[in-house]
Amino acid sequence: MFLTRSEYDRGVSTFSPEGRLFQVEYAIEAIKLGSTAIGVATSEGVILGVEKRATSVLLEASSIEKIVEIDSHLGAAMSGLTADARTMIDHARVETQNHALHFDEPMKVESVTQAVCDLALRFGEGADGEERVMSRPFGVALLIAGIDENGPQLYHADPSGTFYRYDAKAIGSGSEGAQAELQNEYHSSLTLAEAEQLVLKTLKQVMEEKLDAKNVQLASVTKEQNFRIYTDDEMKVVVERLEGSEAQPTTS
Amino acid sequence: MFLTRSEYDRGVSTFSPEGRLFQVEYAIEAIKLGSTAIGVATSEGVILGVEKRATSVLLEASSIEKIVEIDSHLGAAMSGLTADARTMIDHARVETQNHALHFDEPMKVESVTQAVCDLALRFGEGADGEERVMSRPFGVALLIAGIDENGPQLYHADPSGTFYRYDAKAIGSGSEGAQAELQNEYHSSLTLAEAEQLVLKTLKQVMEEKLDAKNVQLASVTKEQNFRIYTDDEMKVVVERLEGSEAQPTTS
Amino acid sequence: MFLTRSEYDRGVSTFSPEGRLFQVEYAIEAIKLGSTAIGVATSEGVILGVEKRATSVLLEASSIEKIVEIDSHLGAAMSGLTADARTMIDHARVETQNHALHFDEPMKVESVTQAVCDLALRFGEGADGEERVMSRPFGVALLIAGIDENGPQLYHADPSGTFYRYDAKAIGSGSEGAQAELQNEYHSSLTLAEAEQLVLKTLKQVMEEKLDAKNVQLASVTKEQNFRIYTDDEMKVVVERLEGSEAQPTTS
Amino acid sequence: MFLTRSEYDRGVSTFSPEGRLFQVEYAIEAIKLGSTAIGVATSEGVILGVEKRATSVLLEASSIEKIVEIDSHLGAAMSGLTADARTMIDHARVETQNHALHFDEPMKVESVTQAVCDLALRFGEGADGEERVMSRPFGVALLIAGIDENGPQLYHADPSGTFYRYDAKAIGSGSEGAQAELQNEYHSSLTLAEAEQLVLKTLKQVMEEKLDAKNVQLASVTKEQNFRIYTDDEMKVVVERLEGSEAQPTTS
Amino acid sequence: MFLTRSEYDRGVSTFSPEGRLFQVEYAIEAIKLGSTAIGVATSEGVILGVEKRATSVLLEASSIEKIVEIDSHLGAAMSGLTADARTMIDHARVETQNHALHFDEPMKVESVTQAVCDLALRFGEGADGEERVMSRPFGVALLIAGIDENGPQLYHADPSGTFYRYDAKAIGSGSEGAQAELQNEYHSSLTLAEAEQLVLKTLKQVMEEKLDAKNVQLASVTKEQNFRIYTDDEMKVVVERLEGSEAQPTTS
Amino acid sequence: MFLTRSEYDRGVSTFSPEGRLFQVEYAIEAIKLGSTAIGVATSEGVILGVEKRATSVLLEASSIEKIVEIDSHLGAAMSGLTADARTMIDHARVETQNHALHFDEPMKVESVTQAVCDLALRFGEGADGEERVMSRPFGVALLIAGIDENGPQLYHADPSGTFYRYDAKAIGSGSEGAQAELQNEYHSSLTLAEAEQLVLKTLKQVMEEKLDAKNVQLASVTKEQNFRIYTDDEMKVVVERLEGSEAQPTTS
Amino acid sequence: MFLTRSEYDRGVSTFSPEGRLFQVEYAIEAIKLGSTAIGVATSEGVILGVEKRATSVLLEASSIEKIVEIDSHLGAAMSGLTADARTMIDHARVETQNHALHFDEPMKVESVTQAVCDLALRFGEGADGEERVMSRPFGVALLIAGIDENGPQLYHADPSGTFYRYDAKAIGSGSEGAQAELQNEYHSSLTLAEAEQLVLKTLKQVMEEKLDAKNVQLASVTKEQNFRIYTDDEMKVVVERLEGSEAQPTTS
Repeated sequence: MFLTRSEYDRGVSTFSPEGRLFQVEYAIEAIKLGSTAIGVATSEGVILGVEKRATSVLLEASSIEKIVEIDSHLGAAMSGLTADARTMIDHARVETQNHALHFDEPMKVESVTQAVCDLALRFGEGADGEERVMSRPFGVALLIAGIDENGPQLYHADPSGTFYRYDAKAIGSGSEGAQAELQNEYHSSLTLAEAEQLVLKTLKQVMEEKLDAKNVQLASVTKEQNFRIYTDDEMKVVVERLEGSEAQPTTS
Repeated sequence: MFLTRSEYDRGVSTFSPEGRLFQVEYAIEAIKLGSTAIGVATSEGVILGVEKRATSVLLEASSIEKIVEIDSHLGAAMSGLTADARTMIDHARVETQNHALHFDEPMKVESVTQAVCDLALRFGEGADGEERVMSRPFGVALLIAGIDENGPQLYHADPSGTFYRYDAKAIGSGSEGAQAELQNEYHSSLTLAEAEQLVLKTLKQVMEEKLDAKNVQLASVTKEQNFRIYTDDEMKVVVERLEGSEAQPTTS
Repeated sequence: MFLTRSEYDRGVSTFSPEGRLFQVEYAIEAIKLGSTAIGVATSEGVILGVEKRATSVLLEASSIEKIVEIDSHLGAAMSGLTADARTMIDHARVETQNHALHFDEPMKVESVTQAVCDLALRFGEGADGEERVMSRPFGVALLIAGIDENGPQLYHADPSGTFYRYDAKAIGSGSEGAQAELQNEYHSSLTLAEAEQLVLKTLKQVMEEKLDAKNVQLASVTKEQNFRIYTDDEMKVVVERLEGSEAQPTTS
Repeated sequence: MFLTRSEYDRGVSTFSPEGRLFQVEYAIEAIKLGSTAIGVATSEGVILGVEKRATSVLLEASSIEKIVEIDSHLGAAMSGLTADARTMIDHARVETQNHALHFDEPMKVESVTQAVCDLALRFGEGADGEERVMSRPFGVALLIAGIDENGPQLYHADPSGTFYRYDAKAIGSGSEGAQAELQNEYHSSLTLAEAEQLVLKTLKQVMEEKLDAKNVQLASVTKEQNFRIYTDDEMKVVVERLEGSEAQPTTS
Repeated sequence: MFLTRSEYDRGVSTFSPEGRLFQVEYAIEAIKLGSTAIGVATSEGVILGVEKRATSVLLEASSIEKIVEIDSHLGAAMSGLTADARTMIDHARVETQNHALHFDEPMKVESVTQAVCDLALRFGEGADGEERVMSRPFGVALLIAGIDENGPQLYHADPSGTFYRYDAKAIGSGSEGAQAELQNEYHSSLTLAEAEQLVLKTLKQVMEEKLDAKNVQLASVTKEQNFRIYTDDEMKVVVERLEGSEAQPTTS
Repeated sequence: MFLTRSEYDRGVSTFSPEGRLFQVEYAIEAIKLGSTAIGVATSEGVILGVEKRATSVLLEASSIEKIVEIDSHLGAAMSGLTADARTMIDHARVETQNHALHFDEPMKVESVTQAVCDLALRFGEGADGEERVMSRPFGVALLIAGIDENGPQLYHADPSGTFYRYDAKAIGSGSEGAQAELQNEYHSSLTLAEAEQLVLKTLKQVMEEKLDAKNVQLASVTKEQNFRIYTDDEMKVVVERLEGSEAQPTTS
Repeated sequence: MFLTRSEYDRGVSTFSPEGRLFQVEYAIEAIKLGSTAIGVATSEGVILGVEKRATSVLLEASSIEKIVEIDSHLGAAMSGLTADARTMIDHARVETQNHALHFDEPMKVESVTQAVCDLALRFGEGADGEERVMSRPFGVALLIAGIDENGPQLYHADPSGTFYRYDAKAIGSGSEGAQAELQNEYHSSLTLAEAEQLVLKTLKQVMEEKLDAKNVQLASVTKEQNFRIYTDDEMKVVVERLEGSEAQPTTS
């Protein structure tokens, strides 16, 4: 049984007798080895949060970029192979720039997500005049947060090229526990500030290290401020607020 | 015996001694893992219906697109690998646009289906000036519903590039039970409203979750309204009608 | 012995020690899985007949196209992988159109057959400026019936790219029994009407379902009417005639 | 021993430790499965003769083309995979046409043979601007008969790309017995008529079926008549002459 | 278990069932076979230091180039396959030259590092108009030291295409011990002179040979002097200083 | 041991652990299966001699071309796969023609040999604008004899692309015995006539058939006559002289 | 253990789990099968010396070219596959010519060496507009000797693309013993004449044949005379000097 399976799972583009594509499934496993990332969407905007795993005290935590801007109105948090993510992000940036140039309007969040997923689906393909594609599935998942005429939105894109919109979603090594927590705590009338605290509280529960202002990173997308990554000072404020809120029940 | 078979079923384009193409057959298996989709054709029009499997309550069911418009007069329901379907649908959209542009008339439903199947047959092929093709069979089946000078029509297209016209057809994980139900209930004088109820009733029988207005989606193609996906309000109405009709025998 | 053979039969273009090309032979096996098709040539014209296997009562039998027109003076019946046949038929149609355009005369039946066989031989070849070729042998056989200055003719083309002219020929799952029947019944002075009945009678003997006007299809090529597929009404007439002729000895 | 050999014989272009190219040798085996073809060269001209194996009485023997014209002054008889031969013959025809066009003289028989052999050697090669080449050795041998300033000549070309000139040569399934017979009977002062009878007599000995005017075909190349395939009437005359000559000892 | 793993680790671009890319991990092993390289960043500048392993007394140590200049404001130390490093360094040099040409300003240290990592990620890719890429992962790691508007910076780039900024980092065969030492001794207020001594002291601890002015090499990047490799005379001075400092406790 | 070796010897361009290229060595084996060829260089000129193995008395020995002219001042004798040799010889002819055209002087013998060897080395390479190269090593060795400003010269080129100049050299199935004989008999003051007899005498010793004027072929290169292949009459003279010289001790 | 290793060592560009590239290591083995070559650098110039292994007394030793000129100021001695070396030497010659043309100055010795090593690293790469590259590592090592503004220099380049400068270096089958001898005898104040004798003496010790003026070859690079290969007369002089010096202690 096992030997037979192994004959299928090495083929980058081969179906198993049960109709499965093992290489894509294994790429999804690569994401479970990555640091945790969380997104929460509210009517005011979307909050993204990531864990930064510093393997050495001499590593500058600021150089761990797990949240990146794609266009002024949208950005992404990632989990999995960081180097792979760069290719996807670069692709998304080119797509949004081209869209803005040709249509004089920001690209829709769903369209950006679809463009990234089309790239993911095209791994293993030959020479492409426009841009180069990987010879294996991408080993990374993205949480894409943005705002457009349909309001704030959160999308999840995985190595199979599949994407869905979520109210709240966790990916990476702590995703199982985090998603359960999100499911318990999420409600549709969350304020942005409450979403901020929900993301931090959930990250805290699944991180092995003690959460502080340096080993997590937040970003938000709102109508007023577009996509922005929190400054170090802002991180300190929200982490302190989390600690305060945990010391006593929240009253807001 | 089994070992020998395994030597053939890995080859993407290799015949087995019995003349079978295993990779295509395994791709057809991928569809049996997908959510159920059903189409019913009447003289008034065609109804497409799909199950939406939400793996999390935080997933926005509206982002599960299992029914899509191809051109104003035709659309498709899908089962299998959603990401693969996008490539086929994009191809169909380009073909219908080109046809309309060159011939100033809508493309025939059968011609659209054939164009999609020609693409399916071409997997594994090299660089193509016009568009790129997958390096494995597509893991998706389509129910294509449309209307043209030959009236309303329903086609089924599978990964082998084969297509046939059906009065009523079910695909996906619940297809076996659903097809049996359709065979019992279908008759050629069904009204569009009766087809609507037949699709819903059949989906209800094969779905694991309890059917409601959010986890199923309907679409119709009629001469008057062309292809259109039911709005949330319309879905509520037809689901309520189903519940009513089940409480008491239909009198219409 | 068997293990050794298996080393050769996977290679798409590899000779076995006995000088055999197994992949081509396996493609020929694919045809034995197909529905039966029969052709009978007379001095008045050629009759093609095919079985239509409907796997469901909801499948529209009219969408099963096993007989197709290539040019006004010739057409083909097929058995095997239907999707593969489309590529061959499209190629034949382009060839006949080009021939008519350049030489202002219909293409000879033998030349069309040779063009189709040249395509069959070219499987596995790289990029072709003119048209794309399969990466495996075609899994389909054709009976090509046409008329030209040499009179009515019937050709058989198989996946090896070999073709011969026949007086009468059967292909597909029932070909063995059908060919024996044809050999017994065929004589060179058959009228077209007798050929019609011979094709139907032979199909009836090898079909699993009971033959009726919907599950078989006939076509003819004659000097007067060129290539034409029988209408539903004509099919009813000939099937009734068959039933009549079987009830009592033919007197015509 | 056997297992080790099998590792080499699958490689299309791999030497075995003994310096052999097995795929080419296996292609030569394919020819031993073919029908017998014989050529005899005399000072008056060359006679080619082939056996036509009709697998069914309904097969039109005239559609079995085992002897073909290349140019007005030369032609070929073949044994092996008929479809492969078409590619070689087409190549030879293009070469002779080009030669005539550029140099205003018929191409020499040896040059034509070399052109065919160069093509045979090039199997497995990539894209060729001029014409396409097979991805395996050609499974066919040719007897090329022609006439030029050096008089009538007979060449034998095999899948290895090797060619030699012969006085008399047999290829195909009956070649062993036929070649022995030719060796006994051939002498350099044979007349064309004697060569005709020698070819027929030899074919008769190695054929499984009884030789008649339909299951063999002859062609000749002479200074007076160039290359020509015998008509059906001529075939009847020579076959009757053979029967006469066998009834009584020849006196010519 | 082991046999199964071996099926994945040979594929250059294949995920294992656990989501790992073994070929990239093995390339990282190649670096552990290389000589040790160390970088230490201070607010005044960055110091790079490498061990030079001379396998023969007749080998000119000056020809062992383990530290190279990329642009006037940045350079790199390497460990692993030296020949591979040349390709990466050449790529970085072209990128910095192009940047300076197009934007009339020096390229940022992080951007140079990212350009090198993008190249690393692209191994196994086909023809590239601009420059050629390896058919396997690069077997080398780089410590990139530079200075820009963000001050002095030290980056570490590995074969997976991942990069992070470090205060102090060791790579190569002695990296484990060296990194521990750096972690103990590093503090953010180190002077450049202290960093010089820290690098030398750490190299001395992990080298098998006795450290002298010929078997180590230092380089520095400072605002005043840009990137420069120490001259032989300077090396003598700093090595003597190390010996002096070890003889008695430092007082600076 | 043997199994391990077999893993390397199938790779066309793979080194074994001992640093050997087995496919090239096996190609050299192919030459040992070929007919014997001998070259002897004297100060007056070079003599080439080959054995012609006629497998049938009906084969025209004159069509066995084992000695060919390359340019007026040089030619070659071959042993191994004759068809492979044609590609090498054609390459050499083009090179010598180009050289004469561009530099208005005959190409040097060593340069021609090097050009042939460069081609041999390039097997397995991709598309070449100028000329096509084999996908395996050439299975042929050449003795290249020519005359230029450095006097008469004899070169030996083998499948590895290596070439050396020899005073006298034998290749092919009888090479071992022949080379020993040459070593005994060769001296630097041989006349051309003595070299002629030495070649013939040596061929006679290693041939299985009895040597006569038809189954051997000689050619010479001299300042006076350039490269020329002996006519049938000349062959008779030298073979008779050999017989005479063997009947009685030579007195010349 | 051994079986596992064998899975890696066949891959031309695959890392083993320990981070090794076996094909490159096996190519280095090919050099250990080659004849010995030695280089010794002095302040006056560099001496290169090679052993010429003549496998037959009829082989012209002068055609064994193991030392070649690259440009007037530099040359190389080789060991390993001679045919491979030609490609590297041709590349070096083109590079030096281009450099001289563009910059009007001789190319530096280190730059030439690096160009050769870049070519070595690029084996296995696809089509290259400029020049073709091998599909396996080069099986040859070079000792490159030259003179430029940095004085006389000796470099060693191996199949891995790595190069270092040496005072004295031996390669080939006798390299181990020769290198030990060089290490004992080399000192930095050697005169060119002493280096000449050191090279000869060392070759003598490791050669199986008795050294004479024909089976070794020397070359020198000096400021006065550039690169030059010793004439036969010069070889006789230096070999006699060696014999004299060995008979009695040197007094120079």
